[in-house]
Amino acid sequence: MNGAESVLRTLAASGVDVCFANPGTSEMHLVAAMDRVPEVRGVLTLFEGVASAAADGYARMAGKPAATLLHLGPGFGNAFANVHNAYKGRTPMVNLVGDHAILHRPLGAPLTSDVEAIAGPASHWLRSARDAREAATLAAEAVAAARRGGVATLVLPADAGWDESLGAAEPARQAPAPQVPDEAVETVANALRSGKAAILLGGVTTGTRGLTAAARIAAGTGAAVFHDTFTPRLARGGARPRARLLPYLTELAVDALKEFEQLIVVGTRPPVGFFAYPGKPSLLWSPETNVTVLATPEEDALGALEAVADLVGGEPAPVEPLPRPELPTGGALDLDTLTAAVAAFLPDDAVVVDEAVTASALFQDRTAAAGEHDYLFLTGGAIGWGLPAATGAAIGAPGRPVWNLEADGSAMYTIQALWTQAREELDVTTIIVANRSYAILEFEFSRVGAEGDGTAARALMDIGRPELDFAALARAQGVPGRRVDDVPGLIDALQEAVGEPGPHLIEALV
Amino acid sequence: MNGAESVLRTLAASGVDVCFANPGTSEMHLVAAMDRVPEVRGVLTLFEGVASAAADGYARMAGKPAATLLHLGPGFGNAFANVHNAYKGRTPMVNLVGDHAILHRPLGAPLTSDVEAIAGPASHWLRSARDAREAATLAAEAVAAARRGGVATLVLPADAGWDESLGAAEPARQAPAPQVPDEAVETVANALRSGKAAILLGGVTTGTRGLTAAARIAAGTGAAVFHDTFTPRLARGGARPRARLLPYLTELAVDALKEFEQLIVVGTRPPVGFFAYPGKPSLLWSPETNVTVLATPEEDALGALEAVADLVGGEPAPVEPLPRPELPTGGALDLDTLTAAVAAFLPDDAVVVDEAVTASALFQDRTAAAGEHDYLFLTGGAIGWGLPAATGAAIGAPGRPVWNLEADGSAMYTIQALWTQAREELDVTTIIVANRSYAILEFEFSRVGAEGDGTAARALMDIGRPELDFAALARAQGVPGRRVDDVPGLIDALQEAVGEPGPHLIEALV
Repeated sequence: MNGAESVLRTLAASGVDVCFANPGTSEMHLVAAMDRVPEVRGVLTLFEGVASAAADGYARMAGKPAATLLHLGPGFGNAFANVHNAYKGRTPMVNLVGDHAILHRPLGAPLTSDVEAIAGPASHWLRSARDAREAATLAAEAVAAARRGGVATLVLPADAGWDESLGAAEPARQAPAPQVPDEAVETVANALRSGKAAILLGGVTTGTRGLTAAARIAAGTGAAVFHDTFTPRLARGGARPRARLLPYLTELAVDALKEFEQLIVVGTRPPVGFFAYPGKPSLLWSPETNVTVLATPEEDALGALEAVADLVGGEPAPVEPLPRPELPTGGALDLDTLTAAVAAFLPDDAVVVDEAVTASALFQDRTAAAGEHDYLFLTGGAIGWGLPAATGAAIGAPGRPVWNLEADGSAMYTIQALWTQAREELDVTTIIVANRSYAILEFEFSRVGAEGDGTAARALMDIGRPELDFAALARAQGVPGRRVDDVPGLIDALQEAVGEPGPHLIEALV
Repeated sequence: MNGAESVLRTLAASGVDVCFANPGTSEMHLVAAMDRVPEVRGVLTLFEGVASAAADGYARMAGKPAATLLHLGPGFGNAFANVHNAYKGRTPMVNLVGDHAILHRPLGAPLTSDVEAIAGPASHWLRSARDAREAATLAAEAVAAARRGGVATLVLPADAGWDESLGAAEPARQAPAPQVPDEAVETVANALRSGKAAILLGGVTTGTRGLTAAARIAAGTGAAVFHDTFTPRLARGGARPRARLLPYLTELAVDALKEFEQLIVVGTRPPVGFFAYPGKPSLLWSPETNVTVLATPEEDALGALEAVADLVGGEPAPVEPLPRPELPTGGALDLDTLTAAVAAFLPDDAVVVDEAVTASALFQDRTAAAGEHDYLFLTGGAIGWGLPAATGAAIGAPGRPVWNLEADGSAMYTIQALWTQAREELDVTTIIVANRSYAILEFEFSRVGAEGDGTAARALMDIGRPELDFAALARAQGVPGRRVDDVPGLIDALQEAVGEPGPHLIEALV
């Protein structure tokens, strides 16, 4: 058994059974081994940035890592932005990066580069195999590292793939997340009792289990419950316990938090602005607010939250589902009617992948009134994540409809993801909010106090000239695409998407 | 004047007048400054990997650097593969990478990452501005570093853009390339006289000046003249002096060089295989061949080559133009008829951007018989370069037709480049060689000795299911696109592309 096969067999033995691949010559033995290890399903993507976001979306839904297969330093570079998103969200992910054979590396061949340097800033765990004999052991360690919540990157020189191995490795022991000490739990319980308090949930705590614990604490103490602006996966809709979204805008976030004497942070970091702005604060809490971190993202945040709930929790009142937005029946297609129609149509048990950027706040608000669903956010802020993340989420949550709310500018970063959706016949409905501009930039342009309003600057934010035809971009890749510019057309397209299996794209001109 | 404006004014004063931009919030002051510094032309791209390849293509033709404007670490990540190509080709390039404001950096905001770590492996010069007062000086140094032949990356924290600066900086003094010592020139002259010799040209030596000097040496000594498999820009066609392409395949390259007792390397590195293969050599010259490096890429290779020619050169015979391939008049469309038709139609003074991968060798062979043109190669081996490099080349060589010979798999990496071609009304003809597979991988699959021939492995090399419609992908972005599947259709499409201004895409089903 060569090193490549030993790595794939180790992945399979460790429970990794999907590999999003964009291989090259240095990965040929891994590709060949796919035939001998059918337990690992290879999913081809047309760009490495699709592979990495797909692995992110997959793992958020499957609750376990997928592998990616990438081609040397430039391949990791192409994947980088979406590996970064996974890194910030601590999504489990195993990157297999092929590299030149060991003796070929120092020769300066065209594709030679420092893979470890590129991968370092977006990897919680990073190793490079020295030979075929240790490749499987390192693969097992990579999976264990990823399962602890993070990005594991294993660089595999070509000869570590083609040389003889020692066979597959046993799954590596996975250390449990460190427990939060009892004293920290006591401290937080006392803080909750001592004054007006807010809890900020993030990371693994925004699922049903964390929200339920937070609701018990709220019932017992009157604390307000927020969740991170960009949390990996939020359980919401129907009668699920609710948390308030911490607003994206610095001013609004500061305003939302300023009334609280205590801010308890769980499974995430104390909140900071997405960007800095001249004369505006970077820290989102008031100087008068006492901030206590109950559990870092590395610690057992769910256990700590439940321990606090056991000390101070009460019995929450049943949650009343919010009334679904009414389906608009006519009128112009704009952000208001678009978001209302999407919220009205969103199927129960859907997975929502949100990269709508300027339209996100309204989508988030409206879909809160839909049935139960999971909502995936852009954890690392690097756009070009939505289409491929939806692709991976559909593979990670088979049988569940995936709805991708997508800005036109962001969609163009990784438009190739649609092809994989068609190839794998995935149930993804992509809704392109086509405003023909980097609207977020036009907005931010004024907020940063930038001066100048002439044609040169505006031209760098206008993507409407020439007009992009997203419906045609979809059809050219095998995905049924429709462009709609009025409410009846939108409703018809949504009905079609819900009624037919497989991927659909709706370009909504707003 | 704020830091952003001081940087742009410095670029303009240093002769950098094009900026390929994909900006975000942290670059808003640079965007705003575009209005006040009209000397710098902003060219919007829809993905950072388009911006970096466009800057590469631009500089190869304009002979001076363009700037890119990138958005933090993930933006550099997206740009990385094509910055890598420029790095390996030593193309002059100035990357401006926006980052968080200095005080915002340590707070762990979503888009925070180690920009310097990511940029390092693909930058010959790398600095990060500490404040607005030094930003302009660093920008001037970046341009000087790039002009020496390489990638200069300047990280600009947002507050270095919005704070008050000291004004624009003077152009920095550009150190000339180190001269090759006379003794080295003598040594090479003696080597050329001492036995059967070959000269390998690369880097800056494959323009008319270098080829002319090499032809004089060949006339005086009988030496054979080769050029690198992937050289940045080769002057060829018509009655220009010729050099032989060193073949891509290890076996063929070894075969081509084995007869020589002396190998003189100029402006490049001693030749090595693109990849390593089990049981095949990595070094392409014979153990019996004596290798002498006349000039490294960092040294004055052209001056050294001419000095050698002055010592040993003769008077080369006039070069007879090769007979143009005959235009096929019918028959099936295949690689043979496609490459013949392209060579027959290629306009004089064209710029050819070659990312045809498996079809490259035949295109290279056939177009050698066309009129005078420049031929740009994939210097770093990272695919996804062709479409955006052609975009930049058209801006760097106004008035010259650009022909992009492009593989279908590679085209999908940066298909967004077509939109910028339409927006800027560039005279680029893209010819997609649509074989519906990663044909190079199917070929390499067997060469690396990989076993396994089942569906799983093949599926990771087949991009024909579903079928991609490149003509439609072009039209959806504003570029006239045609699909052709026979010779008359191809000829008609080529005539249309030659006859009409602006971009065209021809999808050739072979």
